[in-house]
Amino acid sequence: MQTKSNQTTELEPHAAVTPMPSADRLARIHTRLEELLERGDISPEAFAEYSTVAHELPTTANTSAHEHNTAPTQFVEADGIRFAYRRFGNPIGTPIVLLQHFMGNLDNYDPAVTEALAAGREVILTDNAGVGLSTGAAPETVAGMARDAASLIDALGLTHVDLFGFSMGGYVAQQVTVDRPELVRRVILVGTGPRGGEGMAQLDPDTAPLFGTIYDPQDLMWLPIFFSPSDASQAAGRRFLGRIRGRREDRDAPVSPATIAAHSTAARRWGAGAAGRFDYLREIHQPVLVINGSNDIVIPTVNSYILQQNLPNAELILFPDSNHGSHFQFSEQFSRSATDFLERSNV
Amino acid sequence: MQTKSNQTTELEPHAAVTPMPSADRLARIHTRLEELLERGDISPEAFAEYSTVAHELPTTANTSAHEHNTAPTQFVEADGIRFAYRRFGNPIGTPIVLLQHFMGNLDNYDPAVTEALAAGREVILTDNAGVGLSTGAAPETVAGMARDAASLIDALGLTHVDLFGFSMGGYVAQQVTVDRPELVRRVILVGTGPRGGEGMAQLDPDTAPLFGTIYDPQDLMWLPIFFSPSDASQAAGRRFLGRIRGRREDRDAPVSPATIAAHSTAARRWGAGAAGRFDYLREIHQPVLVINGSNDIVIPTVNSYILQQNLPNAELILFPDSNHGSHFQFSEQFSRSATDFLERSNV
Repeated sequence: MQTKSNQTTELEPHAAVTPMPSADRLARIHTRLEELLERGDISPEAFAEYSTVAHELPTTANTSAHEHNTAPTQFVEADGIRFAYRRFGNPIGTPIVLLQHFMGNLDNYDPAVTEALAAGREVILTDNAGVGLSTGAAPETVAGMARDAASLIDALGLTHVDLFGFSMGGYVAQQVTVDRPELVRRVILVGTGPRGGEGMAQLDPDTAPLFGTIYDPQDLMWLPIFFSPSDASQAAGRRFLGRIRGRREDRDAPVSPATIAAHSTAARRWGAGAAGRFDYLREIHQPVLVINGSNDIVIPTVNSYILQQNLPNAELILFPDSNHGSHFQFSEQFSRSATDFLERSNV
Repeated sequence: MQTKSNQTTELEPHAAVTPMPSADRLARIHTRLEELLERGDISPEAFAEYSTVAHELPTTANTSAHEHNTAPTQFVEADGIRFAYRRFGNPIGTPIVLLQHFMGNLDNYDPAVTEALAAGREVILTDNAGVGLSTGAAPETVAGMARDAASLIDALGLTHVDLFGFSMGGYVAQQVTVDRPELVRRVILVGTGPRGGEGMAQLDPDTAPLFGTIYDPQDLMWLPIFFSPSDASQAAGRRFLGRIRGRREDRDAPVSPATIAAHSTAARRWGAGAAGRFDYLREIHQPVLVINGSNDIVIPTVNSYILQQNLPNAELILFPDSNHGSHFQFSEQFSRSATDFLERSNV
């Protein structure tokens, strides 16, 4: 048994939280509740209860006043690790926890995606152990990363979440779902692959150097890694960089070399094949949305197809002329598909 | 050079065409035009022009007064063949021509799909040569079927269309697009595969007998062919059968044994492999939406993945727990994805 210390601390300069939602946000909550009621997703009783709660929201501190670029970096302690996260969005429905890619921190989530998701639920951006402002040592296994991610979710007092995992974050999302099935309602896996997938034991020789190249500014590294060589894709990439540079204050700390090394090991181990390697996917009964670009040079696209074929209840979307970061390139289309998926009735 | 006789004849009892659209349909056209204007898909000048045309519509005969179950079976002659078709929907935008599956006729199109498509464009359901009420001999090659389909489109005076091909109709849609690239704007391929695809030279031994089994009524044959064995999928299948049985009058004629034999030969030839077998897909530069079920027992699902990977500009959607007829099972989700795709700006 693990002993958990659940303590939410908000540090300066992150405390500048507006304590009440705007009238506009309240109106959005009401519209959303009416939609859910109309679709039969919530009962009239639940509608009445939520409506009352929504009316009372202005008098209680909550996260819905924030958006991607204004949500303060917050911290929660669990298992001796102080996890950094940001939380914002519409406080109804099942919250979604976002699990980040290799070398990414809280500032690498795309506001075009998170804001769209936040219209219908709370969005919780996370730094796993050892990443950015999170303390602790980054584990050298996905299993360890999944334990830490689940600790963070538990420490936030969340008992039922949706997961969004991109790339290595998708490995973690799969493992959390296998380890803690009761915790997870639906899963979105982007640019990722199964344990022991095709060509996942090591990076392609043409791709590996892209992670070590020095740029000025360094975030230009993501253009060849996340986007295809076409003009259209590269232009979308520059728009993406503009979006993630949009947050000016309260930014995260860079990912340390020690964490990069540990995560490299974890990713390599996950990618290495094993007998019956895809059997574990059969245990994941949650609805899963699998998304990728047509030619993912980091985790070959065929692995998204393998995920869909081996998961009992998965939908696959592959975008044209795109690479590892297809959801950044097709952020609008992705957001529509993702919110449709999350809001779909379970029946 | 072929000599074409373009003559549209409407026979009794198919002549009961209401000559003017309802006020409701006119309002829908206006709303749609406003959306297109707002999105910048049409110029203010075009908007003004279309609006004027829309106002004049009530005084001219047109097809928009009809829906799936009321659209009369019409006929057009080309190359000595009298082609049967039905045409209805919103007379703006690029019309979409639907190409039918093996053993299917005009009554096998799903109104849940065609009505959704018809909200934003004209929908033209077709019987290829030798099918149903169309005269002529069914060709024993997909190339021949594609020539006939293009003749039909030409005979209708259409110069720019979207194509929707399901199963063998998807083979024809690919071939028409290769042969007549200037004619085709966008393509939707459902439950189909490339020339020389995986496992396409002959039907799976478990699947082949399903096409020869006698049922009462015979349309029950589609439950195991189009839907997965799960309760949910079979229930969706029964709803689909209910929908295609909904048209009571002016139904099509059954597909003849001679046509079934010819189309079997055509499908087998298309499925047989050849060197450089997927090269032709590189010539298709139109945007393509590829859709299939997770386990297509007629044309293995991997062929949808192969299509997406080899077409220069294709998006793939694979649905969970589904088979050859995934668009019938997920008709609502399919229709939303299809209309999104058709209405997406080309930029």
